Amino acid sequence: MRTLSDLWIDRSARPTLQDQIARQIRERIRSGDLAPGDPLPSTRDLASELKLSRNTAVYAYERLISEGYLESASRAGIFVSRSITMPRDSRRPLTTRKTAAPLQIHLAAPRPFRPCQPDVGLFPLLTWNRMRGRALRSEGRNLLHYQASCIAGLPALRENVATYLRDHRGVRCDSHQVVITSGSQQALFLLAMLLLKPRERVYVEDPGYVEARLAWRSAGARIVPGRVDAQGLPLPKPDSGRMSVIYTTPSRQFPTGVSLSLPRRLALIDFAARNKTWIIEDDYDSELRYGAAPLPSLQSLDASGRLIYTGTFSKVLFPSLRLGYVVMPDALLDRFVELKHLSDDHLPLLDQATLALFLESGAFYSHIRRCRREYAQRHDLFLDLFARSSLPLTFEPTDGGMNVVGYLPKGSDDAAWSRRLQQSGFDVPALSHYAIEPVRPGLVFGFTAFASDKLRAEFKRMRPILEKTAKERA
Amino acid sequence: MRTLSDLWIDRSARPTLQDQIARQIRERIRSGDLAPGDPLPSTRDLASELKLSRNTAVYAYERLISEGYLESASRAGIFVSRSITMPRDSRRPLTTRKTAAPLQIHLAAPRPFRPCQPDVGLFPLLTWNRMRGRALRSEGRNLLHYQASCIAGLPALRENVATYLRDHRGVRCDSHQVVITSGSQQALFLLAMLLLKPRERVYVEDPGYVEARLAWRSAGARIVPGRVDAQGLPLPKPDSGRMSVIYTTPSRQFPTGVSLSLPRRLALIDFAARNKTWIIEDDYDSELRYGAAPLPSLQSLDASGRLIYTGTFSKVLFPSLRLGYVVMPDALLDRFVELKHLSDDHLPLLDQATLALFLESGAFYSHIRRCRREYAQRHDLFLDLFARSSLPLTFEPTDGGMNVVGYLPKGSDDAAWSRRLQQSGFDVPALSHYAIEPVRPGLVFGFTAFASDKLRAEFKRMRPILEKTAKERA
Repeated sequence: MRTLSDLWIDRSARPTLQDQIARQIRERIRSGDLAPGDPLPSTRDLASELKLSRNTAVYAYERLISEGYLESASRAGIFVSRSITMPRDSRRPLTTRKTAAPLQIHLAAPRPFRPCQPDVGLFPLLTWNRMRGRALRSEGRNLLHYQASCIAGLPALRENVATYLRDHRGVRCDSHQVVITSGSQQALFLLAMLLLKPRERVYVEDPGYVEARLAWRSAGARIVPGRVDAQGLPLPKPDSGRMSVIYTTPSRQFPTGVSLSLPRRLALIDFAARNKTWIIEDDYDSELRYGAAPLPSLQSLDASGRLIYTGTFSKVLFPSLRLGYVVMPDALLDRFVELKHLSDDHLPLLDQATLALFLESGAFYSHIRRCRREYAQRHDLFLDLFARSSLPLTFEPTDGGMNVVGYLPKGSDDAAWSRRLQQSGFDVPALSHYAIEPVRPGLVFGFTAFASDKLRAEFKRMRPILEKTAKERA
Repeated sequence: MRTLSDLWIDRSARPTLQDQIARQIRERIRSGDLAPGDPLPSTRDLASELKLSRNTAVYAYERLISEGYLESASRAGIFVSRSITMPRDSRRPLTTRKTAAPLQIHLAAPRPFRPCQPDVGLFPLLTWNRMRGRALRSEGRNLLHYQASCIAGLPALRENVATYLRDHRGVRCDSHQVVITSGSQQALFLLAMLLLKPRERVYVEDPGYVEARLAWRSAGARIVPGRVDAQGLPLPKPDSGRMSVIYTTPSRQFPTGVSLSLPRRLALIDFAARNKTWIIEDDYDSELRYGAAPLPSLQSLDASGRLIYTGTFSKVLFPSLRLGYVVMPDALLDRFVELKHLSDDHLPLLDQATLALFLESGAFYSHIRRCRREYAQRHDLFLDLFARSSLPLTFEPTDGGMNVVGYLPKGSDDAAWSRRLQQSGFDVPALSHYAIEPVRPGLVFGFTAFASDKLRAEFKRMRPILEKTAKERA
């Protein structure tokens, strides 16, 4: 008879002693240390061995008997059940038990000059928390329930987003068309599932947003690149075959910053109507313009219901919020919401209610105005720092946004430049990283996440690296 | 020359006056009210007509000129641009402008006796909010950033979930295998994409969880039902073809409440290892047991790495939180995380940090103990109410969970009974709602979301409806 003396118990741990014993005996049976028919120590012996109350031992055994691991042969004692056959190969080592680790989160701020990152220091967190409290007070615990009526989003949020999009982004929509997503990435992923069959074609901007391409690929689609020029995305070449979807960032092309010209916009809309192509307009940061008002959204020009408009609150509020939206044409709305229901159902309601109040109260608009002012200064400062240097990077005028592209001399290997910067702790992707076909070499700098002092200091640190790279490559 | 006298402005609205005018002129061009070449009033006339400053009119026109809608013919005035051709059919009516609606959320509590709903009144919201504040104080605004390291979840949360699953659910796992999802539905949807090709087979419990079936179907899979009996899901019949996936709720089968027996567990694990079938174990509410300790998870018996374990915090904390987890075998982990990255990337970090602290502090465990106590009482009370009535419903003994099935007399049309209850404001699904093949008729009652008084009162209201239905159907 085994003594089971290698069992151990931990009186400070959360599982009960009975749980701990049952678990370890179960492990021994599974690992083959205890074989069917093996006898176990009596509850009295086990209790005295481990300095437990006898009841604890009795309960542990009873539980294992009820589970079928052990059997009791009246007076002969307790045995490993003869009727069980453990699966082959179940001899895995016991996982080392750990107690809960103290919370060590170790999250990082974006490294300079990572593109598309807002300055979360500007975010009015106190106001946000106040809105959250207000939402909880006004709605109470109903905000904690599952709500079948909220698969497409909290109705009050959809209403306020629709108003915002109509008044400030020139989107024609009614709130029933607005679906709240966890960001544009979720919108694109679900749209890929909804709109694309394997081997169908998607026409995309080149260079362009990589994660969108991966979403189209995950649906098995073929990617057809359209070279972005100073007017944005041109029409697909006549011989490139039927396009199921066109994906574009017309307000400010990502990553080049070019705005799609009005003639191109009209041509694209017309193309979509004639060819029954869906256009997905990703308006990811058009709130952040510093100069003239932007062109109206592509969506507002569309009359044939072929346009899907998507955007996110990640860029203007804070990225870890994970809330965005899509404006769906009526023809696709129900199927999209059904897919949302299956894929993750509604999103956290407390955040949605907070955001609804944040929009409602005007705090959202003040915040955007503040970001615009700050980012415009940073934009000018960053370009000025380059202008005062003798670095061989050139910048094309754009309306700002969150990023600027510094073009490198012809023939430069921008990926090598980017790696060089990465080694010194910078996060500056090469333009070729976003490109399918060969592209004018450049580096994509984000300037919005860094206050002026930081911009200056990091630029000072980056400058000699760029100078050295330029010299070596010359 | 048009006077444009039907333009209107709203001085209390958020868009600037200039924005409002530009938008309305744009609309008139798009709708065809203004045709290419049409002259516009001078800025002076427009300003005096609308009682605006002249500058506002000038800026609005300049903007439309820069957008290409208007053109200025030096002294001849301003005209609608002759070079634009609007897309056909763009004559959509102007969307009626609405200002932001005051927040009216109108969320509902679950109707009696909706299955699978926790009592959110028991949730310690104050403690939760305190943990949220603590997370913000300790991590600061880094919690607001996007974090590429958190696609699979906040590391501290994954650690604490792994500890919880090891100690309390008998899951063998290391924290790197834990992926935080928005709930088991998201896990199932992504697993369907990852594991299933069109026309492959999924073996499911019948009756069983409908949304899971829809997830398998969305991947084009064929559903093979396995009739649940008193021991749970049997092995697939030998002639039913190769199974790619087996989906099961072994701790407490949904909706019948049956626990999968140990011999069946071992047989299922063995079947999966021999046939290279993936088993998905959905342990959706196994925290909520009121009697004996549950059988160890199926996952803990698996040695061949074919088992995927998933669960949710929706049922034990609150449903609108939208956080759950999946424990992935190493072989699938990277591909699953990549798919998560494409589908919606990481989930809200503030909630994840709050939950990590909530687990860490032990508040989670106290809350579960409290729910168990309360729900056990409600379970007994609910069954007692039925026992004291002469209603023709019978209940099989189960270990509780959140729901009980009241079986109806043979030949009853349970869908008709359910509709009858629905007409009176009840939410009591028929067992056949969950079934693929004909099933013993029954009604699925959830009892956890309703305090004792409410349970009594609603039972009293429901009883005559059931009596009447029984009489009519007899």
